[in-house]
Amino acid sequence: MNYVKGKNELKNWVVSESSFNTNHLGKCEAIMCLGNGYMGVRSSTEEKYLKETRDHFVSGTFNKFDENEVTELPNIGDFTALEILLNGDRLDLEKGEVKNYSRDLNLKTGLITREFNWTFKGVEYHFVSRRFVSLKDLNLMAIEVAITPINSDAKISISSGINGQVSNSGAQHFHEGEKRIYNKKFVEMISTTTTSKIDFIQMTTHKIKLASKELHINPELNMDRRKVSVIYDVDVKAGVEFKIEKLCSVNTTRDLVHIDRDLKEIRTYALNQLENFEKVGFDTLLEASKVEWNKKWDAIDIKIDSAVEFDQLSIRFAQYHLIAMTPAHDSRMGVGAKGLSGEGYKGHSFWDTELFLMPFFSYTMPEVAKSLAKYRFETLNGARKKATDNGYTGAMFPWESAWKDDGEVTPVWGAVDIITGKATKIQSGFIEQHITCDVAYALWQYYMVTKDEEFMENYGFEILFDTAIFWASRLEWNSEKNEYHINNVIGPDEYKEHINNNAFTNYMAHWNLNLAIEYYSKIKSEKPAVFNTLNEKLDLDSNLKVWKDKSEKIYLPVPRKEDSVIPQDDTYLTKEIIDLTKYKNQEHVGSLFKDYSLDQVNNIQVSKQADIMVLFYLLENKFSTDVKKANWNYYEPKTLHDSSLSLSTHCVLASDMNDKDMAYDLFRRASEIDLGPNMKTSDHGIHAASLGGIWQCIVNGFSGVRMLGGELRIDPKLPENWNEVSFPLNWHGVNLKVTVDKEVLTVVRNSDSDVEVKFTVHGNEYILDKKIEIKY
Amino acid sequence: MNYVKGKNELKNWVVSESSFNTNHLGKCEAIMCLGNGYMGVRSSTEEKYLKETRDHFVSGTFNKFDENEVTELPNIGDFTALEILLNGDRLDLEKGEVKNYSRDLNLKTGLITREFNWTFKGVEYHFVSRRFVSLKDLNLMAIEVAITPINSDAKISISSGINGQVSNSGAQHFHEGEKRIYNKKFVEMISTTTTSKIDFIQMTTHKIKLASKELHINPELNMDRRKVSVIYDVDVKAGVEFKIEKLCSVNTTRDLVHIDRDLKEIRTYALNQLENFEKVGFDTLLEASKVEWNKKWDAIDIKIDSAVEFDQLSIRFAQYHLIAMTPAHDSRMGVGAKGLSGEGYKGHSFWDTELFLMPFFSYTMPEVAKSLAKYRFETLNGARKKATDNGYTGAMFPWESAWKDDGEVTPVWGAVDIITGKATKIQSGFIEQHITCDVAYALWQYYMVTKDEEFMENYGFEILFDTAIFWASRLEWNSEKNEYHINNVIGPDEYKEHINNNAFTNYMAHWNLNLAIEYYSKIKSEKPAVFNTLNEKLDLDSNLKVWKDKSEKIYLPVPRKEDSVIPQDDTYLTKEIIDLTKYKNQEHVGSLFKDYSLDQVNNIQVSKQADIMVLFYLLENKFSTDVKKANWNYYEPKTLHDSSLSLSTHCVLASDMNDKDMAYDLFRRASEIDLGPNMKTSDHGIHAASLGGIWQCIVNGFSGVRMLGGELRIDPKLPENWNEVSFPLNWHGVNLKVTVDKEVLTVVRNSDSDVEVKFTVHGNEYILDKKIEIKY
Repeated sequence: MNYVKGKNELKNWVVSESSFNTNHLGKCEAIMCLGNGYMGVRSSTEEKYLKETRDHFVSGTFNKFDENEVTELPNIGDFTALEILLNGDRLDLEKGEVKNYSRDLNLKTGLITREFNWTFKGVEYHFVSRRFVSLKDLNLMAIEVAITPINSDAKISISSGINGQVSNSGAQHFHEGEKRIYNKKFVEMISTTTTSKIDFIQMTTHKIKLASKELHINPELNMDRRKVSVIYDVDVKAGVEFKIEKLCSVNTTRDLVHIDRDLKEIRTYALNQLENFEKVGFDTLLEASKVEWNKKWDAIDIKIDSAVEFDQLSIRFAQYHLIAMTPAHDSRMGVGAKGLSGEGYKGHSFWDTELFLMPFFSYTMPEVAKSLAKYRFETLNGARKKATDNGYTGAMFPWESAWKDDGEVTPVWGAVDIITGKATKIQSGFIEQHITCDVAYALWQYYMVTKDEEFMENYGFEILFDTAIFWASRLEWNSEKNEYHINNVIGPDEYKEHINNNAFTNYMAHWNLNLAIEYYSKIKSEKPAVFNTLNEKLDLDSNLKVWKDKSEKIYLPVPRKEDSVIPQDDTYLTKEIIDLTKYKNQEHVGSLFKDYSLDQVNNIQVSKQADIMVLFYLLENKFSTDVKKANWNYYEPKTLHDSSLSLSTHCVLASDMNDKDMAYDLFRRASEIDLGPNMKTSDHGIHAASLGGIWQCIVNGFSGVRMLGGELRIDPKLPENWNEVSFPLNWHGVNLKVTVDKEVLTVVRNSDSDVEVKFTVHGNEYILDKKIEIKY
Repeated sequence: MNYVKGKNELKNWVVSESSFNTNHLGKCEAIMCLGNGYMGVRSSTEEKYLKETRDHFVSGTFNKFDENEVTELPNIGDFTALEILLNGDRLDLEKGEVKNYSRDLNLKTGLITREFNWTFKGVEYHFVSRRFVSLKDLNLMAIEVAITPINSDAKISISSGINGQVSNSGAQHFHEGEKRIYNKKFVEMISTTTTSKIDFIQMTTHKIKLASKELHINPELNMDRRKVSVIYDVDVKAGVEFKIEKLCSVNTTRDLVHIDRDLKEIRTYALNQLENFEKVGFDTLLEASKVEWNKKWDAIDIKIDSAVEFDQLSIRFAQYHLIAMTPAHDSRMGVGAKGLSGEGYKGHSFWDTELFLMPFFSYTMPEVAKSLAKYRFETLNGARKKATDNGYTGAMFPWESAWKDDGEVTPVWGAVDIITGKATKIQSGFIEQHITCDVAYALWQYYMVTKDEEFMENYGFEILFDTAIFWASRLEWNSEKNEYHINNVIGPDEYKEHINNNAFTNYMAHWNLNLAIEYYSKIKSEKPAVFNTLNEKLDLDSNLKVWKDKSEKIYLPVPRKEDSVIPQDDTYLTKEIIDLTKYKNQEHVGSLFKDYSLDQVNNIQVSKQADIMVLFYLLENKFSTDVKKANWNYYEPKTLHDSSLSLSTHCVLASDMNDKDMAYDLFRRASEIDLGPNMKTSDHGIHAASLGGIWQCIVNGFSGVRMLGGELRIDPKLPENWNEVSFPLNWHGVNLKVTVDKEVLTVVRNSDSDVEVKFTVHGNEYILDKKIEIKY
């Protein structure tokens, strides 16, 4: 792999695979995944290989296979595999000789180009394929394959269509529906999810060209079980380019645009749509998609002048995927922990969205952040039901969230327990409860960054209050200590189950209650109509008393006298300490479980990921730098970073503590989770939170941007080998351009708005007119 | 491929693959399929390849994926794929260098041995694997893999377990159940069919040996979705043999032996059973299975002295599969059209069983024939329901039959119609009705051959009468011609749909009615108790009048004056005649449909398979040799033999007409359907009926054995290049050994019974004492 490629204007815009190796199929499928928020397609090669994972997902189309499973994004019929026979032999790069191989994902345009020369049985073929998922036409994916036999005539046969024999690792989410080939040209397959009853209309059509001239031939037609395809057989002269253009479309009955249409109407719509695509053609469709990508990049582009070129690529890579994976078109849908790039985590949304993705969107694409925040509002009924089911009140958000009505969807069974030989029971869906304050926090952050009063009035305040109601009902009175405890939880560190008083959870619950108290007064006086509606709905008046009483009595663990270490929970510090060297140096995450069962891990001072560090990051002003350092020194050596959420948080914290080398090192390691030398990390999909984390390292970490108590702070700590970084920033609806070099912070107002922009830099307050340069 | 192998005592007992080619995976998987009637396993290689089809079926465990599909045999979790890493590289014969490759299925013992040397990255490995499905312990399959690094030490890693991510071409029949690894040794996976709710308990355990000495090491344990496995990593010195023995068991809640056990009890049973297998070990388990195979071969072996060695192999191949595929242990189950060797025809039973498999069993393993006949009795309720649903009375057997309660299970949609672009509607389940007289015929043949009065009294007569009741209700009065017609059917020739008065169907319905009339009188006088019971149940007295009245008035097409051709149906002879040369010389069956839609084929004088020929075969004495010849000359040139049921029937007919060369040629072609040079014919499974047909070619064709009106006839017509054939024959419970050489027919009585054995040879009647030699 050689990730850095692209010359001149494409420099650091291209993720590239420079030689082909079937051991790395999963890596490229995931990191080169194409998407437009509506759908995502793993970039499997045109020809099939044994270890491929060929996935295609449509956002929000969740289904569960049976009552014992949880809902997941179903893998729809595959368009991408073409059976390519060259003189009767299957194109297979494990055979013959391959020269000049490259596969490039252009992050700027969302286009994949794959090119090589293949020599087999004495005939050399030049192969070029292009593929994109349109950012303009959300239903469209387009594939083009061009093959030129160089030194001899050749018989080229292509079998292509829609293959619905795929599944999610064996779980089949679709009833087989009607298959049809209209006019020997437009191939259609209908399928319906088994329990959520979403109809999918998949269509495809092909155009054949010889030396750029369209060839009008009838293909052989094929239907098999869950499969429909056509075969084109063409005799091609030496030196002549054979080309097949394949346009593919997906429509579903879940699509907002089809909400008033029945299946028959959508089928007609889809057929007309594909006929139109076919008239427009591959190249023009591609141009239209590029225009949309350009608009996005204009709004979000970050420029880094670093001694290490890879730094620039890694943020573009992250932002490309953040755009490609996020269903910005439909607020009924969240973002999956693997985006749309793999079956991992089943397309479910976690706190990853709130703490790792929302900051990027709130600060640069607030309309997308709003959609994601609204998604949680859409799921409020499920959250209320979860609270009620667990004996609480208010809104208890699901640890894993899927379709808005699905409620809690965390699976119950995980990997093998090496002691009992049984599957391990996953407790997160039951007791990892901090998600509820994470939702409140991200919402408040969105509000503070954007000042979107309309959103808060219609959706946001209701969530803020209802999460506080949950926490008040969740607290447990300890009569011995005369304080409220939160027992039997999992904190961010998932290697500690059934613990009491996780510091992060207790502090954030406390914060959530106080936020509700604060906004009770504020909106009562400033927005009486909103207040009255919510008061009627949630009885804020009675709840206020409870919040005030209880929030004062929550146990908030404080630093130990002797070493300033805050106990992560009631028992962590009493547990056995073992030599973790082997696991700190592990090649693959989770190696601990080859030696220990989860029960055993529970009793060792070892952490999966940032826990107290996240607390320091969110409630920065509550803790001194000394306390932060003491806790870093205690916990980091015990943290295996087995979660991809860990490194970027540590990077931001290291920046906050002014340890630039450590911060930069952690940034590099975070960047390499997906785009690094370990070829196995992305097999189940890219790491959405880690990609959002890369943005956070740069903006919240190195550039020191933070919203604190509603105010903007910019305390740059540029890494030693960076000369400059610049990025867009949205504050209260104003587009800012922020540039940080070794000595000077420059902030430029990029929009016409006359909203006042105020911020602090290393303790000094500044007010922005058009442009300000601050020597920091 | 080199099918003929085996030296000395193994001569013509071995089906062999002498070089490896991934284009031929399906062929070997199917023709080397292992089975014991309880289960069948396609012989996929230990290492995985792209185009493999890894199927494992358990007889009778039908399930349907959803309401729109028909029931089928589900593909259960796979045991056979082992991930074998040699110095970190996956064993893959498409890479590196392969020498001395062989894969042999020993038909005598049911053991597959695969052997080769593989050199990769400078290290040469000797590989030998053995695999069998036990004919003794029906739940058991055993696999052994031995690898010796020849010229260097090597790191060998084997990942092995149970993989439930498989499906039936995308249809997933199982709910995922509990997975468990007991004592790091006994791997268990529970799964349950989605609609028929059959629990499967699959278990496996491994034993590792180095230089024949057991190595006690703990493997790494793995659980994934629908998957559980263990990994053994072993460092192996050059020249030392590494061996892994894998014992696998399947138990289900459908098994007769578990009928009174709940799932928990069966799990305990299965664990104990596997622990016992493990104690006994691979070699001893294999010996026990061989003993059972020997017993079978003693009972059925046919010896052929032919100039062509392949002839001997082909009948053994056929008989091996007839044993392996047939669920002789459970009369609730039928035989699938592809046995247990592939997903083709979904494990369903067709008329193939009655007309192509039952003769072999009736004449040589009558207890198995009885089980198959009883299977139809078990399905009587479904047959009666089908009659009622269609407005008829009596028993209307389903064209495709699965679990006894499933009723008609013919799928409704087939291949693409090239004109409309829609899937073709399959009519057989609605109108291919001759299956009902085929069942009656096979039953009667079983009775006549075995004289099994007990079976007839308890089951057989009820079927005979109820099928007659059906036919009487099915007949349609034509007032113009004053006769009964049978309109809108499909005859054996499935290229003619919605036809009236198919000769085969009309004659056989007539025969069925007359048989009922005959047995009405016979059992009324000879078995009054049986008669009274059935008379009460089916009102035989009233029905008798109807049968007599109607059977006399059925239209039975007669040979045309001008050319003695019998119209296959009312319109066949009026249809267009086209040049069929291209399709008669086709490489793959069904090529006609690349040029014509089924609607068009319906209007051409072209036949899929034997139709009137089957009538000549079953009701031999009704037609003169001249009529048979005239019809052969008319219909055979129009018959594409697109069904595997066609060639063997034609072979027997050619023998009957004394055309020895034609008969032998047809036998060879029939033998080559599975065991021939075309490597694609068996991809979806072997052709059960064709294998039964090979036996018929030899016994009913070349040896001229026939039951006619209850009497045995043996009119030998030995092929020119055969010197002798000998075979066992069961007649009225007496074991006979029949030997035919160029001039003499020898019949020997092999059992002590004093039952009189009478037969005719070329018109002369003989009575057998101990041995008789007849110059024929």
